[in-house]
Amino acid sequence: MGPHPAVAAIRLAVRRVLTDILDDHGRAPGRPPHERSSSPLVLVACSGGADSMALASALAFEAPRLGVRAGGVTVDHGLQAGSDLRAAEVVVRLRELGLDPVESVAVTVGREGGPEAAARDARYAALDTTAERHGAAAVLLGHTRDDQAETVLLGLARGSGIRSLSGMAAVSGADGRYRRPFLQLDRQTARTACMAQSLPVWDDPHNADPAYTRSRIRHEGLPALEKALGKGVVEALARTAQLSRDDADALDAWAGRAEAGVRDADGRLECAALHALPPAVRRRVLRRAAIEAGSPAGSLFARHIEEVDRLITGWRGQGAINLPGRVVARRQGGRLVIRQG
Amino acid sequence: MGPHPAVAAIRLAVRRVLTDILDDHGRAPGRPPHERSSSPLVLVACSGGADSMALASALAFEAPRLGVRAGGVTVDHGLQAGSDLRAAEVVVRLRELGLDPVESVAVTVGREGGPEAAARDARYAALDTTAERHGAAAVLLGHTRDDQAETVLLGLARGSGIRSLSGMAAVSGADGRYRRPFLQLDRQTARTACMAQSLPVWDDPHNADPAYTRSRIRHEGLPALEKALGKGVVEALARTAQLSRDDADALDAWAGRAEAGVRDADGRLECAALHALPPAVRRRVLRRAAIEAGSPAGSLFARHIEEVDRLITGWRGQGAINLPGRVVARRQGGRLVIRQG
Repeated sequence: MGPHPAVAAIRLAVRRVLTDILDDHGRAPGRPPHERSSSPLVLVACSGGADSMALASALAFEAPRLGVRAGGVTVDHGLQAGSDLRAAEVVVRLRELGLDPVESVAVTVGREGGPEAAARDARYAALDTTAERHGAAAVLLGHTRDDQAETVLLGLARGSGIRSLSGMAAVSGADGRYRRPFLQLDRQTARTACMAQSLPVWDDPHNADPAYTRSRIRHEGLPALEKALGKGVVEALARTAQLSRDDADALDAWAGRAEAGVRDADGRLECAALHALPPAVRRRVLRRAAIEAGSPAGSLFARHIEEVDRLITGWRGQGAINLPGRVVARRQGGRLVIRQG
Repeated sequence: MGPHPAVAAIRLAVRRVLTDILDDHGRAPGRPPHERSSSPLVLVACSGGADSMALASALAFEAPRLGVRAGGVTVDHGLQAGSDLRAAEVVVRLRELGLDPVESVAVTVGREGGPEAAARDARYAALDTTAERHGAAAVLLGHTRDDQAETVLLGLARGSGIRSLSGMAAVSGADGRYRRPFLQLDRQTARTACMAQSLPVWDDPHNADPAYTRSRIRHEGLPALEKALGKGVVEALARTAQLSRDDADALDAWAGRAEAGVRDADGRLECAALHALPPAVRRRVLRRAAIEAGSPAGSLFARHIEEVDRLITGWRGQGAINLPGRVVARRQGGRLVIRQG
């Protein structure tokens, strides 16, 4: 008798990603031949919750069969009393699965960008450091299709275009370090796989805390949308993420090529040339120029770019436009000048 | 004392669109000079609800000031008992506003595509015929920013990419006949403007009937999202529509240009050339080719195109792919053949 279907599903998802990592590892051009042939290390980032415990169990099962070394890391965010004990418990569970090395990393969560963003920044910084210290080829993350759907809705609420609809990438980070094997798998499958394997899991109380936007999306927003639109909403949102990501990549590439063509000999942006671009491409060129001039990408919203765009498409002698990061955009003659000052 | 702010807002929105129509009308190249200089007729499509009654009132106010003739049309869908009496009442109200000509058009709603799509198809066909019969330069529609937000969510549920996120256009139809002056205005403003002008309005019971997906989105889905994400959701969805529309237009244009470059001398699609395109552009080329071969655009989903795409990007000798409209896609040698059969 084979494994439970949910267990088979999580293993297949991990096997595919490991095969992919092995391919990349074998081909990695910067790596010396002796290292390329050695067995790569893959870490799983595990909170002790159902998604990442399922991921850890599948990694522990598949890695040895593919000649991959498997380890684990859990991040202690220090945000709840006893979080250090929890982290120690996760370390024990990961070791019981046969992972090695396994470690817990304590971080200090700042306040920048709100509690969720600050926790995420601290977590990824710790994962980066740990991966580098161990020379890991990859770090697996347990995000599921449901997480992806929530991320798309959060992006939708920003109203800042298709890049923010593109959710999380299956492969991201420096050198494609982060991999998300469960991005096409639903949360229930991960949960079922844990039960089928009698794995104890921990439900983070943050996940149900209505103080967090994501938690409200998960427990109120998404269920209401499903009620109104039908059960396929999560899948539709996840597919939207993938399509939007490809579209955004293609348009970014176009804007990158277009930028060279709209600058004069001194590198200044020519308004007539900008005007001739499709609006979608022009806005991306303007955004790139603003960021290049020192405007922080995270503070630069669609309405800023729209205002700069009106210097091109709705010119009636308006004054300079102030952008985040003390960057100023103004039209001078037939040129658009964007610079700090 | 000026008009109520809500009345000022609806009038400004209509004035902008009328100015636009006059510009287009004056420039229309196919029109003989004597017609170009005549006063154009603009019709308002009015259900008797708050949005379109507000629109009718603003049109009645602004049109004579701009030398535009203003008329109205109401469509009797025949879906409710007494709908003919309702339509006759709307005609009276539009005449009372000073519109002329005003007429009611009865339609028969079919069943194709579901009740909402069938009613919409019948309505636009009737509006087209009426506009042509009167030689109208434009037909104004009362869709608000809230309608736009609902349309984006409905598109999101299809999960078929950014074109379905782009909602309704400010200008659409043959020769840009349909105009939506209120697309940036919220529903509450239209409603307030009716009250401020003591205009009687009619609440279509369909709008609150949970049997209709749009009604469930309006009364359950969107309020739940607003609760989870904050009050800016409607605005964010409307902005997403605009950005997505521009992005989809730009990518469609790219695909149109790319298509010529991926066909061999006999017009067959070359797999190697397709493979070299960005995925977002390649999928659009494949979609165009499938539609050209006879696959109906409305039945061709993202998953169909994904499967055809795998003949290019994941070739392992798989068989022919069946597409809607008895269209078949198969790989033959290095060529992709898509045709009815």
